[in-house]
Amino acid sequence: MNKPLWIWYPGDFEKWLQEQVLMRRDFRRVIQPPFWRLDSCYHKIRFSCPYSSASAQKVTIHTSAEIAAGVLGIANVIEPNEDGTYTLPPGKGRFFVDAYQPEGLPAILVEGGLVSGRGWDASVTEHPEVPAGCYQTFDDPSSPPTAFALRQVPMPYRSVKDAEGIFRGKKVKGRLFDFGKETFGLLSFRNVSGNGRLYAFYGESMEEALAPDHCETFDLCEVNGSAASMPVSRTRAFRYVFILEDGVGFEDLAYAYEYLPLRYRGTFKSSDEKLNRIWETALYTLHLNTREFFLDGLKRDRWIWGGDAYQSALMNYYSFFDRDICKRTLYALCPKPPIERHINHIPDYTFYWFATLYDYYYFTGDLDFITEIYDRAKALLSFSLSRSEDNLFVYAKEGDWIFVDWADMEKDGALSVEQILFVHALKVMGIMAGLTGHTEDEGTYTAMAGRLMQAVEATFWDESKGAFIHSIGDYGRCETVTRYANMFALMYDLVDSDKKDSIAVNVIKNPAVQEVGTPYARFYELDAIGTVGDKDYILREIRSYWGGMLDLGATSFWEKFSYDETDHYEMYGRPFGKSLCHAWGASPVYLLGKYFLGVTPAEAGYASFTACPYLGDLSFIEGSVPTPGGNISIRMDRAAITVTAENIPGHVLVRSKAIPSAAGAEIEDLGGNLYSVAVTPAVPCKISYTPV
Amino acid sequence: MNKPLWIWYPGDFEKWLQEQVLMRRDFRRVIQPPFWRLDSCYHKIRFSCPYSSASAQKVTIHTSAEIAAGVLGIANVIEPNEDGTYTLPPGKGRFFVDAYQPEGLPAILVEGGLVSGRGWDASVTEHPEVPAGCYQTFDDPSSPPTAFALRQVPMPYRSVKDAEGIFRGKKVKGRLFDFGKETFGLLSFRNVSGNGRLYAFYGESMEEALAPDHCETFDLCEVNGSAASMPVSRTRAFRYVFILEDGVGFEDLAYAYEYLPLRYRGTFKSSDEKLNRIWETALYTLHLNTREFFLDGLKRDRWIWGGDAYQSALMNYYSFFDRDICKRTLYALCPKPPIERHINHIPDYTFYWFATLYDYYYFTGDLDFITEIYDRAKALLSFSLSRSEDNLFVYAKEGDWIFVDWADMEKDGALSVEQILFVHALKVMGIMAGLTGHTEDEGTYTAMAGRLMQAVEATFWDESKGAFIHSIGDYGRCETVTRYANMFALMYDLVDSDKKDSIAVNVIKNPAVQEVGTPYARFYELDAIGTVGDKDYILREIRSYWGGMLDLGATSFWEKFSYDETDHYEMYGRPFGKSLCHAWGASPVYLLGKYFLGVTPAEAGYASFTACPYLGDLSFIEGSVPTPGGNISIRMDRAAITVTAENIPGHVLVRSKAIPSAAGAEIEDLGGNLYSVAVTPAVPCKISYTPV
Repeated sequence: MNKPLWIWYPGDFEKWLQEQVLMRRDFRRVIQPPFWRLDSCYHKIRFSCPYSSASAQKVTIHTSAEIAAGVLGIANVIEPNEDGTYTLPPGKGRFFVDAYQPEGLPAILVEGGLVSGRGWDASVTEHPEVPAGCYQTFDDPSSPPTAFALRQVPMPYRSVKDAEGIFRGKKVKGRLFDFGKETFGLLSFRNVSGNGRLYAFYGESMEEALAPDHCETFDLCEVNGSAASMPVSRTRAFRYVFILEDGVGFEDLAYAYEYLPLRYRGTFKSSDEKLNRIWETALYTLHLNTREFFLDGLKRDRWIWGGDAYQSALMNYYSFFDRDICKRTLYALCPKPPIERHINHIPDYTFYWFATLYDYYYFTGDLDFITEIYDRAKALLSFSLSRSEDNLFVYAKEGDWIFVDWADMEKDGALSVEQILFVHALKVMGIMAGLTGHTEDEGTYTAMAGRLMQAVEATFWDESKGAFIHSIGDYGRCETVTRYANMFALMYDLVDSDKKDSIAVNVIKNPAVQEVGTPYARFYELDAIGTVGDKDYILREIRSYWGGMLDLGATSFWEKFSYDETDHYEMYGRPFGKSLCHAWGASPVYLLGKYFLGVTPAEAGYASFTACPYLGDLSFIEGSVPTPGGNISIRMDRAAITVTAENIPGHVLVRSKAIPSAAGAEIEDLGGNLYSVAVTPAVPCKISYTPV
Repeated sequence: MNKPLWIWYPGDFEKWLQEQVLMRRDFRRVIQPPFWRLDSCYHKIRFSCPYSSASAQKVTIHTSAEIAAGVLGIANVIEPNEDGTYTLPPGKGRFFVDAYQPEGLPAILVEGGLVSGRGWDASVTEHPEVPAGCYQTFDDPSSPPTAFALRQVPMPYRSVKDAEGIFRGKKVKGRLFDFGKETFGLLSFRNVSGNGRLYAFYGESMEEALAPDHCETFDLCEVNGSAASMPVSRTRAFRYVFILEDGVGFEDLAYAYEYLPLRYRGTFKSSDEKLNRIWETALYTLHLNTREFFLDGLKRDRWIWGGDAYQSALMNYYSFFDRDICKRTLYALCPKPPIERHINHIPDYTFYWFATLYDYYYFTGDLDFITEIYDRAKALLSFSLSRSEDNLFVYAKEGDWIFVDWADMEKDGALSVEQILFVHALKVMGIMAGLTGHTEDEGTYTAMAGRLMQAVEATFWDESKGAFIHSIGDYGRCETVTRYANMFALMYDLVDSDKKDSIAVNVIKNPAVQEVGTPYARFYELDAIGTVGDKDYILREIRSYWGGMLDLGATSFWEKFSYDETDHYEMYGRPFGKSLCHAWGASPVYLLGKYFLGVTPAEAGYASFTACPYLGDLSFIEGSVPTPGGNISIRMDRAAITVTAENIPGHVLVRSKAIPSAAGAEIEDLGGNLYSVAVTPAVPCKISYTPV
């Protein structure tokens, strides 16, 4: 029998949690709510499941909601027993629990003669029912889903010194604490006494902490008397904190580092120590931002953005392989009906949501979740279609913000990149519809994707430039070539190989084409290059771009970086506006796993895998890639590749001058110095090869 | 300058309040949630208003929400002053307050250099803004809208005696308290001591209170020790309560009667004492059910139903003339988007909502409210249209419950009554669209109403029967004539006078046509008769039907009554299922005011009035009818009519054999013994006449 799980109205746990998380952003102690609509959870839910029993059944219903229970058709009202359990009469009908909770999330866990979990339905009326939401990890009757919380552990600062800053225009003296690297958590003052205030000015850089008038975040504690411990108001991201005593003294600073417990499954090591540091810093950046949801950055927004989350999810498949955070984030991002705006008000971010959904299925194979969320995904696609033209072209409508990248570009009219992203969204929904048995939708969406892609090629492809141009609009054709549409056409495999080669040469590797503005866009760019096989290019870029940030002292990767910027902290017109710990800066986790360890699913959910490890100029690489069935471990040097796949069969693609050797493994010659070596689950496979 | 008002997202105060009220229903201590979706309020709102000032302005923002304030275009973040006020810089822009409150209703009141109220907007994103919700009565900075509560006053019981009942199949002895009439409030036990339980079994009838195993509601208090006062868990409707002591004693019973404070503006008195008692009992029934919202009944549902509320609102215009309860109820009933079901899942109840909206405007003239709610009304109409056929016919769709009346009738197919109600809804929305400047909608809806009415006449009018037949469907034509479509065709003035006369004779006054099943349907029936002028019929029916309930000892009017029923308490298959205090039983308040005092608005909002008082077989009637501008008082006997209208001009229609006399008043001869006498505001007008 299945273990009992907490169940709720699908998506409502995530909406409940999201609201709290997203409302934690402030700017200098003034809240900064997201500009998009925050959805709430329903307060009154009917949970139900089929019931059939020849004898009476006793069940216990765990919940903090007010409830009524019954079996439709047999006993519409069942009064609870003295001990709070319910005795269901024998018979056949539908068991239901009406749950009402005016605040928080209505959720129940049923155990005994019936067990709540997958297969139960939820409804806000009596009909129609939809599959109830649940997670395999929420199975403790004494701990409802609303008990979900990150973990906090005490952590010492590294050093402290006296320092000076400028506060309200005047020089002030205080103490500067350095935690040695970017961190996130809750400060408290120990043994506080006096009558006045303690100020904590945070800095991701020392410069920011020492600029009380300009730092993005600070806390203040009003003190009147003494206290053994006084925490500040909320968790903060910082490396440095500058403490100012105004009539109040304190003995020491305590700090609790806060994080989401995650298994570190993905690993990477190579002969290049700096590359290893890049990977570790990226992983740390990713973990810091992988919390209740995939957040964008820790100092400032602390929000969920469709584009940022899309990348974090991909990195997650090469590191933690945590499914729940993907599901939490997908639900949190997708608006509840009525859908009135794009995700984050950004059409591109809506389209990435579909890409994220596809990846979730591709890496995990979790069809239950696709089935559960299909209706909501369809509503989001219908919304997108309601805002597209007859030829399916997407223009910015009222309330839309075309984002694409923090870089100069034309944003009016129809951008080629938006159309390409929409093609992929339509393709994805065609596939999802097919998987979940929505045959009519499958045909519709697939045909739309084809029709739109044809129009895109006809409208934007410029044969003389060998690339997609940027846009068309009232201004005519914007003949500029930008990287965006071109790289997604590669990533999503939307053009033939001639066009791919042309794009790689004429756009991606062409320094005359405007550089992308962020690590975010660089992720897509390098992934696009990866799809056409130029892994050396990726390695070079990782070393110089991410290495460039390390050279500047980064302990986590940034929201924005460019070689030629003089002020690395300024952004959005504020001296410390830039986030120095941004999830989209962590893509080496993904790029090194996918293109150097080289592991990808050969079938959805890693039913089998393909590994195509690549050494480049390194003398060795080693690491593991997580899958639902266990890890795939790879080691490669100039002589041999060793692969162990815990539970999964797969093939390793090896480039070798001569036929490689691998004890006991089947080897297939694919031609052109390429060989496919079959790997048996749980059996280490050592392949000796001769580098080409 | 206007007084500052509390503002919120429009409709959200009502949704917040509704949820609590509707969730108070239980059956024998098991909650009975409504089967329809309960909407919640948004938690994060942006409030805003235009701002333009040559000097700095200081404002105080009252709220229990977390807030951020600023002036778009001048200062996007304004840090609060030390005293919590905000100083807005000089300039021109849009002042905004972002308010976040995870539980309850986010609301603000701004005073000082800016004053919140009408003219402010609310938004769940940044755009689009909609007019913020507010009530003139919520103006106290120290009392937010969520402090809204009914009033409770102590009230003694009338008598107590020892009595016996059957509990869990066994005879038990206890005390029976009689409060003398139907009442609603909260019981508490005084000076309780012991170890065990106190039970309170409620009865609207003595029989119900003495049937612990079958009464619809009861409370129990667990006692372990002693307490000076121990209240039961929730307010209850009852006349009798049977108290059982199980190991616990108590000294006395205390009781707080709970009610909505209302001005008793409408009055009625006549030479017929029984008729006066009917009017008083109806008014009491109406007041008991007029609470946070217009509720249906007090013992059982305690819910808001579109049909019941429609009638209560009409009665309210002849008694309390309370606008706020109409607005509260209209918002509570209309679902927030996405609209997935009809109001209460009943198409007829959706259509009555539009009728209620029209009446609200017709009696109050409050165009501000119509403007505020127009978008939501339009969404509800669009939903209705989305479920109608090409010819606009309404059939029951999945999830719909065709109610009409508790009476035997065909409910499959297209019922003539549903179409007639939809015609009126479309007409109303045409008018509302015109009033609010939605010219395109006005044309569309008015044309639809005309088109549908033509189809209804062509399809359902049977010339040989001189009436609308009941329905058409897969079964062909259901040739039965029922009262429903016919009476609404009269009420809504949808047919010519020949058809009206025919319907009055062939349907309404035809005993061969099946009687309606409830006081609810009798309301419509008598109102329909009123429109064709047979007031003697109304008087006879009031005396016999409502008089019939009084003869059976009613102290408030019932959910259902029929002369030939033998068990007056049984309903829904439960021995005490019937509500003995049901708002829809209170229609004499409306009928006597409208057809005997005879007062109606001559223009929307009583810009002027018409009075057409009618004496029937009475020797005198007197009373007043409330209007927005003051009361209209009428006294009529066989010799004279005296009318005083506090602030409103109007005309009195007098039927007289000779030209009536009225000092100083202009008299117009309308022909056929009918005269119109002009009444000047605030001047008592005595009209002597000669009965025809």
